[in-house]
Amino acid sequence: MSKVISALSVSVDGYITGRDPRPGHGLGDGGVLFDWYFTGTVPSSQFDGFKLSEASAEVFDFHAGRVGAVVAGRTTYEDSERFGGGSPHPNAKLVLLTHRPAEVSERQTLAGTIEDAIAKARELADGKDVGLMGGGVVNAALRAGLVDELVLHQVPVLLGHGRPFFQELPEHITLTLIDAVPAPGVTHLRYGVER
Amino acid sequence: MSKVISALSVSVDGYITGRDPRPGHGLGDGGVLFDWYFTGTVPSSQFDGFKLSEASAEVFDFHAGRVGAVVAGRTTYEDSERFGGGSPHPNAKLVLLTHRPAEVSERQTLAGTIEDAIAKARELADGKDVGLMGGGVVNAALRAGLVDELVLHQVPVLLGHGRPFFQELPEHITLTLIDAVPAPGVTHLRYGVER
Repeated sequence: MSKVISALSVSVDGYITGRDPRPGHGLGDGGVLFDWYFTGTVPSSQFDGFKLSEASAEVFDFHAGRVGAVVAGRTTYEDSERFGGGSPHPNAKLVLLTHRPAEVSERQTLAGTIEDAIAKARELADGKDVGLMGGGVVNAALRAGLVDELVLHQVPVLLGHGRPFFQELPEHITLTLIDAVPAPGVTHLRYGVER
Repeated sequence: MSKVISALSVSVDGYITGRDPRPGHGLGDGGVLFDWYFTGTVPSSQFDGFKLSEASAEVFDFHAGRVGAVVAGRTTYEDSERFGGGSPHPNAKLVLLTHRPAEVSERQTLAGTIEDAIAKARELADGKDVGLMGGGVVNAALRAGLVDELVLHQVPVLLGHGRPFFQELPEHITLTLIDAVPAPGVTHLRYGVER
């Protein structure tokens, strides 16, 4: 069966945005968490315009290439200007998880619960994996026991402020390190989630 | 000059204790953050009773061996039953940072500010490095710009509850990865702090 994965950039102190994230400024102020996407010399095979270090390109393209559909939450969706009616991932369809009414394009699918969102994404992914985009969605999926892999792109900074990654989790979810790949400006920590 | 280092065990979601840490139960309930100290086969050259994996023994003993004095905060001190009048480190003297009166033994030194505590620890360390023990002390030293190295012994678990490691930090402290060492039950992430 296809897997459910999260691969987010996170500061060493656990933030996935800088201060005051908002529509049009999804990363907030002082955010440097995405710098490693653009400060290398190797073009991503998956995302146009991304220039990664050699080590990061291998990790990033591997995970981006696995994903056939993405589940995003409402906050990420609005802060990212609704992905222009498309998807945050150039080669993966979008399922939007939201509890409030939302206008979506015909290239976007709506779901009201994390279980429903992941089930719809699995269908759309057509055998490929499902990617979770945004802290709320990842936490909801962890609470529901639906995450297979957690990739932390750990950026070497203490941000001090921003949106915390992990929130309202149940006690004690055991992980297993799959690999740790140091790269310029980021360390890629790939964990399996014990189910 | 000798360095100021922190080397704490921390969960992937950023907790340095389990739920409800308290005197006599410094690690709280459900805490597994210290399991890697005792689940290997290699005795530590620094701490009696510690049995580490080969990879962890190398990292742990290197850092424990660098330290000539330790600064601990009042919470850590009380939760650890005042270290029996001694120090949390068998070969390093203790400086206790506290703003309230405290009874200490003649083997323990009192200080009222983080600057004073680190200065006193430096003297006591006699050329060796100063270790920071406890979240409050590390955060105070980071706020004061006094930390040289941050070693995260990242334990592969999402605890969901406990005492968060990083708190009330100023915006944006830049780190540099020195090395990442995967080991059984823990990944050792050693960061330099940009000053």
